[in-house]
Amino acid sequence: MIIFVDMDEVIADAYQAHIDIYNQEFNAQIKAEECHGREFWQCVPQEHQQSIKDHTRRDGFFQDLKIIEGSQEVLTELSKKHEVYIASAAMEFPQSLREKSDWLDEFFPFISWQNRILCGNKHVLKGDVLIDDRSKNLGPFDGRSIMFTSPHNMNVTSFERANSWKDIADKLL
Amino acid sequence: MIIFVDMDEVIADAYQAHIDIYNQEFNAQIKAEECHGREFWQCVPQEHQQSIKDHTRRDGFFQDLKIIEGSQEVLTELSKKHEVYIASAAMEFPQSLREKSDWLDEFFPFISWQNRILCGNKHVLKGDVLIDDRSKNLGPFDGRSIMFTSPHNMNVTSFERANSWKDIADKLL
Repeated sequence: MIIFVDMDEVIADAYQAHIDIYNQEFNAQIKAEECHGREFWQCVPQEHQQSIKDHTRRDGFFQDLKIIEGSQEVLTELSKKHEVYIASAAMEFPQSLREKSDWLDEFFPFISWQNRILCGNKHVLKGDVLIDDRSKNLGPFDGRSIMFTSPHNMNVTSFERANSWKDIADKLL
Repeated sequence: MIIFVDMDEVIADAYQAHIDIYNQEFNAQIKAEECHGREFWQCVPQEHQQSIKDHTRRDGFFQDLKIIEGSQEVLTELSKKHEVYIASAAMEFPQSLREKSDWLDEFFPFISWQNRILCGNKHVLKGDVLIDDRSKNLGPFDGRSIMFTSPHNMNVTSFERANSWKDIADKLL
């Protein structure tokens, strides 16, 4: 079975990184729970929104992301049984490409370079399962689309859902 | 129609770059015509072969590649009629990722970041046409596989072949 796994919001916690940077720079105390159903930039005053959107163009943003709980353990097991690919829509941010490669080397070394994909959109991927946090990726996918829960997608009901990597293990292991 | 186009040896002249670097550093005068049917490292004395293989890990190697003749013009036209993706197996060389993105920005700006793919292997791409110089990529592809002629693949007979971008235009435009 070929399984594609997204990076941001699925194995790398970009949402929390946005919150942490914002809270520190604007001396705020926003928590992820307050943002359910919204992108993080939609949770801050309008005059701050552009600064959030610019986070992903900063050097080091993607290098410093924390790991989503359970992803290493479950992907280790999945990789033994299935053909697991990391597929990240990263091409919009050229500075992120090397950082994402290095991040995978550090935290997911068992997923070799042969099984890593950095792309612009995921419409052209052919496989059995896609685990992703975005409707725009899950919708066009031909196989089984599993939405991985993130604060911004809490209200989406159109896809099979996994709330955690334990859920993924229950579904696929 | 979805068309995938490889980078090295198809739109970017990596083979000639290997020759140029080698000729300069070893004061040699090898020409591409002498290497037909072989990888360039197979055309040099054994004690020099590792230095060739290391070219692709040098900073700037992919940034400085010359454009394969006709590729800009034909891809401009193909992009107007079809969904054209650049698909390069680049993940083995993390330093190449940004260079390849920048190179495309400079020479193929009409192919937007949405239509660029940097991957490890191409077995998971779903589309209609793949233009590539490598059997390992063309073989597993489900659609129409077109081998773009490069010195190293001159003796391969298992695929439909294009000797130039004019050939591609004749086939696909």
